[in-house]
Amino acid sequence: MNRDAKFAVLGGGSWATAIAKMLCENVDQIYWYMRNEAAIEHIRKEDHNPNYLSSVEFNNNQLQLTSNINEAVQNADYLVFVIPSAFLKTELDRLTVPLEGKVIFSAIKGIVPETSLIVGEHFHKIYNIPFENIGVITGPCHAEEVALERLSYLTIACANENHANFLANHLSSHYIKCKTSEDVIGTEYAAMLKNIYAIAAGIAHGLGYGDNFQSVLMSNAIREMKRFIKKTHKMKRNINDSAYLGDLLVTGYSVFSRNRMFGNMIGKGYTVRSAQMEMNMVAEGYYAAKSAYKINEAKENHKAKTPIIDAVYQMLYKQKDPKSIFTKLTDKLD
Amino acid sequence: MNRDAKFAVLGGGSWATAIAKMLCENVDQIYWYMRNEAAIEHIRKEDHNPNYLSSVEFNNNQLQLTSNINEAVQNADYLVFVIPSAFLKTELDRLTVPLEGKVIFSAIKGIVPETSLIVGEHFHKIYNIPFENIGVITGPCHAEEVALERLSYLTIACANENHANFLANHLSSHYIKCKTSEDVIGTEYAAMLKNIYAIAAGIAHGLGYGDNFQSVLMSNAIREMKRFIKKTHKMKRNINDSAYLGDLLVTGYSVFSRNRMFGNMIGKGYTVRSAQMEMNMVAEGYYAAKSAYKINEAKENHKAKTPIIDAVYQMLYKQKDPKSIFTKLTDKLD
Repeated sequence: MNRDAKFAVLGGGSWATAIAKMLCENVDQIYWYMRNEAAIEHIRKEDHNPNYLSSVEFNNNQLQLTSNINEAVQNADYLVFVIPSAFLKTELDRLTVPLEGKVIFSAIKGIVPETSLIVGEHFHKIYNIPFENIGVITGPCHAEEVALERLSYLTIACANENHANFLANHLSSHYIKCKTSEDVIGTEYAAMLKNIYAIAAGIAHGLGYGDNFQSVLMSNAIREMKRFIKKTHKMKRNINDSAYLGDLLVTGYSVFSRNRMFGNMIGKGYTVRSAQMEMNMVAEGYYAAKSAYKINEAKENHKAKTPIIDAVYQMLYKQKDPKSIFTKLTDKLD
Repeated sequence: MNRDAKFAVLGGGSWATAIAKMLCENVDQIYWYMRNEAAIEHIRKEDHNPNYLSSVEFNNNQLQLTSNINEAVQNADYLVFVIPSAFLKTELDRLTVPLEGKVIFSAIKGIVPETSLIVGEHFHKIYNIPFENIGVITGPCHAEEVALERLSYLTIACANENHANFLANHLSSHYIKCKTSEDVIGTEYAAMLKNIYAIAAGIAHGLGYGDNFQSVLMSNAIREMKRFIKKTHKMKRNINDSAYLGDLLVTGYSVFSRNRMFGNMIGKGYTVRSAQMEMNMVAEGYYAAKSAYKINEAKENHKAKTPIIDAVYQMLYKQKDPKSIFTKLTDKLD
């Protein structure tokens, strides 16, 4: 452990707040960038984030808060990006300081809409960051339970084992256990795909399917996830590890998941647009469904069999009737 | 489909009632044995089982109800046993007619306490029924959802494919989909082991662990189940099929599961005895924990790594403190 290690957390939402909390258990000071200046002022005066996980008390001596992303990036060696993927490009466009030499970890679960790339690939392709300096923080982890210090398990994936171990050490505490992995691509795809399956679970619930069906859907989803990831990035992995199956379950069974909630509204007959307006946001799985579908389509003769992704895509992007699409889907599950 | 096929359902509980309903969709008449004569009288007069799934309406012309197990066995070719495993031996002891030539399907999820055998093995070893006439009806299926005709998936396992297909055809309907399997032993062990994991999930909940941990527990449970079954009966199987993973999930995530409820009480500090008295019954996973532990211990140098089963065994049979046992267990999960 190095209490002087220079970390920057980039993002001001609930998962960013949870990661800031984890790091503050182990290092003397972190840089913490968020756009919202009022939130920064509030944290400085009241020791907690007013908008997210407000029960978490920080020690301001540990926080270098800034609304200038360049200040945070410049001063840190380890950057943890926790910005919703839909806004990542806008935020990165503000960068004037180089990312070269930085170790970049993504705790973003989703696809960058502008490039249709998962976050690690986005940094690699757009910013020329070598893969050995790119990692992922993943695992089944609701931020709200981190706030309550309920035991949670994370997986830190990086091609460079030293970086993975370093992050794992600096995130671990009495309520966080970390394991490491080399499977950056696979864990990122898993984190993205599980949002599509959470939408499917929500649609099923909205249509009136019960718990028996939900368990069959999850059992099929993990097999589909395995096929998809294998076609995209073949390596030895146990799809039942917590970074894949655990993450699927914590989202698919969560009644608080925004993806599941979005799906539930679709299942109940809302249009995509009205569901999004009602929720005042776009669920990450919405973008993921399109990207995953397109990625698979592009493989032509080497496509993975993905009946659940295909069904969600048809419902969200082709305005197909959820009831009849789901009836057809049930014949493809077992 | 053969509407004249001669089935007997043996048992009067909720799962027996659900299976009777499924069969009545496809055959003209079934024999239905239950011990409780008052219940039989009630079904004859009121068309529904007074104690279980009372919303299900039967057509009495389809039911040959009897409180004499020999009458049901004698008149049927296909016997579906749905008696709690703790009472199976007592019921079988009443048999005076032979089981020879009958096709026996077990819809019992558990171990026969007197012989420590799973039900299929019990029929094979104690009654000399050849394995090709022994099958299992399994899969993630709460009886209550069958009553509501919510879509559910069953797996029919039998070494004899014809028998499996026959059962599958006669149980299928607009709300039941069946697949077949050859893995009688593996699916039965899965159905038994999942009750132990549901107890573990309940204990975790009782101790205050949250949803993040629950997903990690289930992710570890399915890997442990795979190791256990592989050591017991090695064959090619996909542990993520609904008969294994689906069944684990529908039970482990159910707040209605009696095994989970029992575990919850243990986690909250009840003794085993007071939890059983409070629930007025013994959860099947209680017996299963001991059997699974002993079966694994007996393998000596070829034991599967089963930290969850071991922990549950220690808490239920060695009066070990749940909190400290669980703390140790969390270090073995990932």
